[in-house]
Amino acid sequence: MKQVKVGIIGFGTVGTGTAKIILSQRELIKKRTGIELILKKVADKDIKRPREISLSEGVLIPDAWKIINDPEIDVVVELVGGIHPAKEFIIEALKKGKHVVTANKALLAEEGNEIFSIAKEKGLQVGFEASVGGGIPIIKVMREGLVANKMLAIYGIINGTTNFILTKMTNEGIDFQDALRQAQELGYAEADPTLDIEGIDSSHKITILASLAYGIPLSFKKTYCEGITKITAQDIAFAREFGYKIKLLAITKILNGEIELRVHPTMIPEDYLIAKVDGVFNAIYVEGDSVGATLYYGRGAGSMPTGSAVVADIVDIAKGTNSLPLDFSEKYSIKPIEEIESMYYFRFTALDRPGVLSKISGVFGQHNISIASVIQKGRSKAGAVPLVILTHKAKEKDVLEALEKIDKLPVVAAKSVFIRVEGQET
Amino acid sequence: MKQVKVGIIGFGTVGTGTAKIILSQRELIKKRTGIELILKKVADKDIKRPREISLSEGVLIPDAWKIINDPEIDVVVELVGGIHPAKEFIIEALKKGKHVVTANKALLAEEGNEIFSIAKEKGLQVGFEASVGGGIPIIKVMREGLVANKMLAIYGIINGTTNFILTKMTNEGIDFQDALRQAQELGYAEADPTLDIEGIDSSHKITILASLAYGIPLSFKKTYCEGITKITAQDIAFAREFGYKIKLLAITKILNGEIELRVHPTMIPEDYLIAKVDGVFNAIYVEGDSVGATLYYGRGAGSMPTGSAVVADIVDIAKGTNSLPLDFSEKYSIKPIEEIESMYYFRFTALDRPGVLSKISGVFGQHNISIASVIQKGRSKAGAVPLVILTHKAKEKDVLEALEKIDKLPVVAAKSVFIRVEGQET
Repeated sequence: MKQVKVGIIGFGTVGTGTAKIILSQRELIKKRTGIELILKKVADKDIKRPREISLSEGVLIPDAWKIINDPEIDVVVELVGGIHPAKEFIIEALKKGKHVVTANKALLAEEGNEIFSIAKEKGLQVGFEASVGGGIPIIKVMREGLVANKMLAIYGIINGTTNFILTKMTNEGIDFQDALRQAQELGYAEADPTLDIEGIDSSHKITILASLAYGIPLSFKKTYCEGITKITAQDIAFAREFGYKIKLLAITKILNGEIELRVHPTMIPEDYLIAKVDGVFNAIYVEGDSVGATLYYGRGAGSMPTGSAVVADIVDIAKGTNSLPLDFSEKYSIKPIEEIESMYYFRFTALDRPGVLSKISGVFGQHNISIASVIQKGRSKAGAVPLVILTHKAKEKDVLEALEKIDKLPVVAAKSVFIRVEGQET
Repeated sequence: MKQVKVGIIGFGTVGTGTAKIILSQRELIKKRTGIELILKKVADKDIKRPREISLSEGVLIPDAWKIINDPEIDVVVELVGGIHPAKEFIIEALKKGKHVVTANKALLAEEGNEIFSIAKEKGLQVGFEASVGGGIPIIKVMREGLVANKMLAIYGIINGTTNFILTKMTNEGIDFQDALRQAQELGYAEADPTLDIEGIDSSHKITILASLAYGIPLSFKKTYCEGITKITAQDIAFAREFGYKIKLLAITKILNGEIELRVHPTMIPEDYLIAKVDGVFNAIYVEGDSVGATLYYGRGAGSMPTGSAVVADIVDIAKGTNSLPLDFSEKYSIKPIEEIESMYYFRFTALDRPGVLSKISGVFGQHNISIASVIQKGRSKAGAVPLVILTHKAKEKDVLEALEKIDKLPVVAAKSVFIRVEGQET
């Protein structure tokens, strides 16, 4: 395919970036690859709103189905987001024999098995580089660059909004609500920030990466998902005292043939490279059995970075590179969160009385939880002080049971807080 | 091509890793891509020495030409290194109609134009992912992942030996010779470390990256190359006082249609992510006009990481992915080092007398060099004290002229030292 006719559905942030790149880099891409990209149609319900670029007369249309039904269009780019009608657009485009490129992580994580199986049946390609890590070519790296590796673990900062918020909280000592407000003012968080701050967006993305890593079907429903709304400036400060930073990590690893798949605030040693990824930037740490530790860093969102990934997919499809169907048929079991082992950080709100530490550590002992370090500070007029404990590796099930008991102790004045800790055990 | 017959020439560190991966990941790769890799022959002059893996009877042979002349072999993997006879092996393999994979950065940087032109003429592919950044898939990222970007700048830590030495010097305050000895003891530096410590290996690699970035012919001879042998613990300590780290950076950028292509010790702000890449690890910062800042990190050498890259190339060739010939015909001019602009760090060994700073800054003024900060410390019994100056952006030509004058001043007791500084101007 030397000349590729492209139709874009959705002329928002990413659609605009994609259109811009197709138009402005046409000569560069042709020189590099021999492939000429033609932007034939762009569909958006709103064809009036002024955008950063103007398209030639007749290119912008209000009806997406005109793109899907246009026999001349080779590749349909779905950039409307959400499940419906994005799913219908994609499936119908495949049925019409068109290749598809999408940035829609929610759709792929939740309905991707159906979409990929239709594509496979039809011998068509679905490019989704832009669905994880924005402009970072992480999908290509995993599918092709590291093709010779069994994947051992992935740790990703794959949501810029929450990383921006946590970075603000860390650097300025402010609370979650203040940091969220700043993120909203700067356009890094949506008016309704739920998908980001509750970890759902990260869960969508790690679902996709886990399927690439281990060949398992897309398993969004089995992904454990916990957001950052309960993280306090106090916990960030205590983490720092122990030499840790708090990041929203999306984690998937394989241990003894079982897969962990989880998103939650995580304490990581501050001298790890990924702990230094700040602001809206994303980074994905990938460990393969041959290559060892690798990391990929860049802008995880935005018009032009995400457009860069979309256009790379279109070029690959034109070259026939993506042509191998994805086979997500491996049958590993995914551990429920209660079954994982981790190190833990606890913050107890304890009455300032003798014997508190002994009572709490007694419960820990009963549940096979071994203490690594303790911070207990000053006296409080109010009578309650924070008691902070780091543990060695323990089972989450044991932790939850211990916490239930501890929270009922008369010396414990408020619901206890815990954060999972990654890194070398000390 | 569903079954690919591979012949490896060179059964050293990378050859062993490559063979190991081909044999152990055969099923995985077949499942992922439908391609089956067959290791048909491995040639090495030394077929007696025990290696980490044992090959089937008859696979290991002493004569490389038997691989090149074997009509059944599809892909010849050249892992002997050096210019000759590696070049003859590769050219002859291409003439026999075989695709080639190589990790040989010296050969590609110095003779790659000829090799790529023969491959193009024959319609064959030359994979060289393993030539830069070991297991990091940086070649793929640049050719495919960032295909939609005009490249603006690349900054690479692409030599693990020198990064290990500088990291040791920084963390332990030891001198270059001590750190080099430790690197040699650990097997991170060769008995003759010239190629690494003089920056030649990094120059080979940045030559390759610059051709990918800007489409220019491989231009090793125009690459400015300066090693780390003159870096002292004292300079590292002063750099730290200013908030900088010293790294051997390989740099290529394009400014107003002119290319810079240079390798030298560089001071970079310690809060930059690339400043935190320590030990034998490599990292390449790539800035594209759409994607913005990205960074790729991993092991830049070693048997298995480099083997991971070699095998990815073989798979790509089997898939036909690499099939686009490289067109390195762009005609940008490459700036001689005297023409670049940079910020600079200077360390003068000045007699401890009044008026020294005024004399030196007077010469700077005459040459349009503007001072940003100064450190002048304590008094010395010997009469000579270090005077350290950071400048704003200046032309290297002006800097060299000024230094010549300053080194002749009676108040200057020894040859002055300068190190280029990257980062935002303050």
